[in-house]
Amino acid sequence: MENGTTTTRKIWNFKETEKLVSAPNLTIRIILDKLTSCLNNADTRPVIPLCLADPSAFPCFRTTPIAEDAIVDAVRSAKFNCYSPTVGILPARRAVAEYLSQDLPYKLCPDDIYLTSGCIQAIEVLLSALARPNANILLPTPGFLFYEARAAFTHIEMRHFNLLPEKEWEVDLNAVESLADENTVAIVIINPGNPCGNVYTDHHLKKVAETARKLGILVISDEVYAHLAFGSKPFVPMGVFGSIAPVITLRSISKMWIVPGWRLGWLVTNDPNGILKEHGVIDSITGYLNISSDPATFIQGAIPQILKNTKDDFFSKIVNMLREDADFCYERIKDIPCITCQVQLHLNLLEDIEDDLDFCAKLAREESMIILPGVAVGLKNWLRITFACEPSYLEDGVQRLNAFYKRHAKKQ
Amino acid sequence: MENGTTTTRKIWNFKETEKLVSAPNLTIRIILDKLTSCLNNADTRPVIPLCLADPSAFPCFRTTPIAEDAIVDAVRSAKFNCYSPTVGILPARRAVAEYLSQDLPYKLCPDDIYLTSGCIQAIEVLLSALARPNANILLPTPGFLFYEARAAFTHIEMRHFNLLPEKEWEVDLNAVESLADENTVAIVIINPGNPCGNVYTDHHLKKVAETARKLGILVISDEVYAHLAFGSKPFVPMGVFGSIAPVITLRSISKMWIVPGWRLGWLVTNDPNGILKEHGVIDSITGYLNISSDPATFIQGAIPQILKNTKDDFFSKIVNMLREDADFCYERIKDIPCITCQVQLHLNLLEDIEDDLDFCAKLAREESMIILPGVAVGLKNWLRITFACEPSYLEDGVQRLNAFYKRHAKKQ
Repeated sequence: MENGTTTTRKIWNFKETEKLVSAPNLTIRIILDKLTSCLNNADTRPVIPLCLADPSAFPCFRTTPIAEDAIVDAVRSAKFNCYSPTVGILPARRAVAEYLSQDLPYKLCPDDIYLTSGCIQAIEVLLSALARPNANILLPTPGFLFYEARAAFTHIEMRHFNLLPEKEWEVDLNAVESLADENTVAIVIINPGNPCGNVYTDHHLKKVAETARKLGILVISDEVYAHLAFGSKPFVPMGVFGSIAPVITLRSISKMWIVPGWRLGWLVTNDPNGILKEHGVIDSITGYLNISSDPATFIQGAIPQILKNTKDDFFSKIVNMLREDADFCYERIKDIPCITCQVQLHLNLLEDIEDDLDFCAKLAREESMIILPGVAVGLKNWLRITFACEPSYLEDGVQRLNAFYKRHAKKQ
Repeated sequence: MENGTTTTRKIWNFKETEKLVSAPNLTIRIILDKLTSCLNNADTRPVIPLCLADPSAFPCFRTTPIAEDAIVDAVRSAKFNCYSPTVGILPARRAVAEYLSQDLPYKLCPDDIYLTSGCIQAIEVLLSALARPNANILLPTPGFLFYEARAAFTHIEMRHFNLLPEKEWEVDLNAVESLADENTVAIVIINPGNPCGNVYTDHHLKKVAETARKLGILVISDEVYAHLAFGSKPFVPMGVFGSIAPVITLRSISKMWIVPGWRLGWLVTNDPNGILKEHGVIDSITGYLNISSDPATFIQGAIPQILKNTKDDFFSKIVNMLREDADFCYERIKDIPCITCQVQLHLNLLEDIEDDLDFCAKLAREESMIILPGVAVGLKNWLRITFACEPSYLEDGVQRLNAFYKRHAKKQ
């Protein structure tokens, strides 16, 4: 206490890691946590969650017994209690290669397939494998913010190009060309689109591949919603154009089999000319997988049975339910003036709403209903409404949305 | 072709990521891949793999039906097909907290538990959460090289202290004190020890905690082999001393339930004084989990049943088998002059063997037998022999090892 000062020694050396606790981690998960904390516990109505691309909690969206049986058989066999090879077990890789080759003009082999803990880990692996000093990557707006969060952590520079709403959310290829330079390594496309639900024509996909070739970059095609397309355009895998530019496809069983919690995805090299191997990208992918955890071995063990035995009628039932839900939402939301499809918010029609996040927070508080603010997918002042749920929830949800609008509408 | 020169434009911008394809990734997996490639296909004898801490392939080491039943129940319930919260589902976190609290002088709560995809992901999360410019971490030699591989990728500086073979592999605390500085954030201990199998006394653990407090660092206690101790000393969890210095414990069901392929582990904050939270470490852990994949939800869902229903006789049967295997190995390896327990290689007794890696490569080629060179655990010219396997394999393995020695012994 000499001279009125004390020297308080810092006792502990550790502290938070800036990049893990700062702003860029604005993932869907974090925003949903915030909205959930706005819910009013005194509201006795059921919460309407039109926010998560995960309808597995609704009985009508239960997965097929074939998938459950495959897991049970794999566990009971006791053949898959062991560690998995870092790239995944061979029977599962072979089954995925055969499954995907049906839609391609060439045959994939098991070595083209890397099993991952959902698409989330596939994105982590890929961005880590591509990161090097000064490298940059081209990302779509709107898009899936997990790419941004992971790229920020991995120190790979992000450059954003717009999707064009007036052209059914096609990639703005002129923007892509002017964004890219000699340090650009890849472009990400999401097809079918998240959050917009658009499906790209094969004509557009071919142009994306040709642009990538011209720029010397690879195409990362996020196809988690593959084949869950219910519009007039058929889904075409980007891998079809893998001989124009190398394509890395990301997929999983999460959405198609409605089992996002099973955490099984795959990263696929669609590269018949072997360019990725020649340029060391394969070694980097394997290098990162060597220092990562794997999807559970018995879930991998179930994959051959799941892919082989699931009948088309399971998927067509799901797609039909989604189509009906979408039509219902579209018809009913048309009647709510402050929102237009595809789901843009008109703040000028509202009195006391600051932005999309404020809209969603107040909606959660007043109506026990959670929808995702556009900011969570890179679209400020839009909304993402997930319609994959029980129809009764949708009905109730649209009514609450309408009541909310009327309460907050600008007085004439 | 003007002036006899061509300008060949570099066509593709992407290339390998140096740090993912270079030397420090000398993990057990990579070394095993190398040894496996040495096997002689013309040798018709079964391969003897005394190399992997994964006995799940041997029928006598099959997991308990209670664990399999818990998985089947969770899948059939269809309650766990959904995404998991980033920290794990509450019932599983609660069950783990109660399970661990039995061995502690204070009670853990569910918020102290973070479920991970095996201990591998727990290590990844923790090193990522602690990394910041100039930070360093203290690691044991010998140890588990995955820490080194992941730290190199994460850019956290590693400093190594020795374990003292003459003191039953205790931590050299004097070395620890002289290694640490104001940028040191943590010390890693592995207890029960990998690869040495030692078990620390509570007296020694308390001294580790006191040293950590003095240095202002946290203790990372890797306890994957908890309770699989078969010597005279009982296993004591490091968390017992969490009020002296914050302790983060890493555990999993992999070894105790012999299901490493199920990929379910947990990271536990043993920190009754809340120091980790106060210093932002908890926020960093959560921040990293937010940008990571999760263990499969239904495997999390099975955890309460697995922890509650597994009877002690399952573990005592396993521990007894391990003790018998260990005694057998010890007795028989004593007869092989070039190897002493704990398993050091005496190159001066051998004629044409360069080092431990060379020993293991030639053993694989000539005897179809795979054991791990010490270099894979940080101990040059030692061997790691895993004895957790069918007794008949052990018998055969020791005979092959002896034959190999006689063929390569230095002529007198």
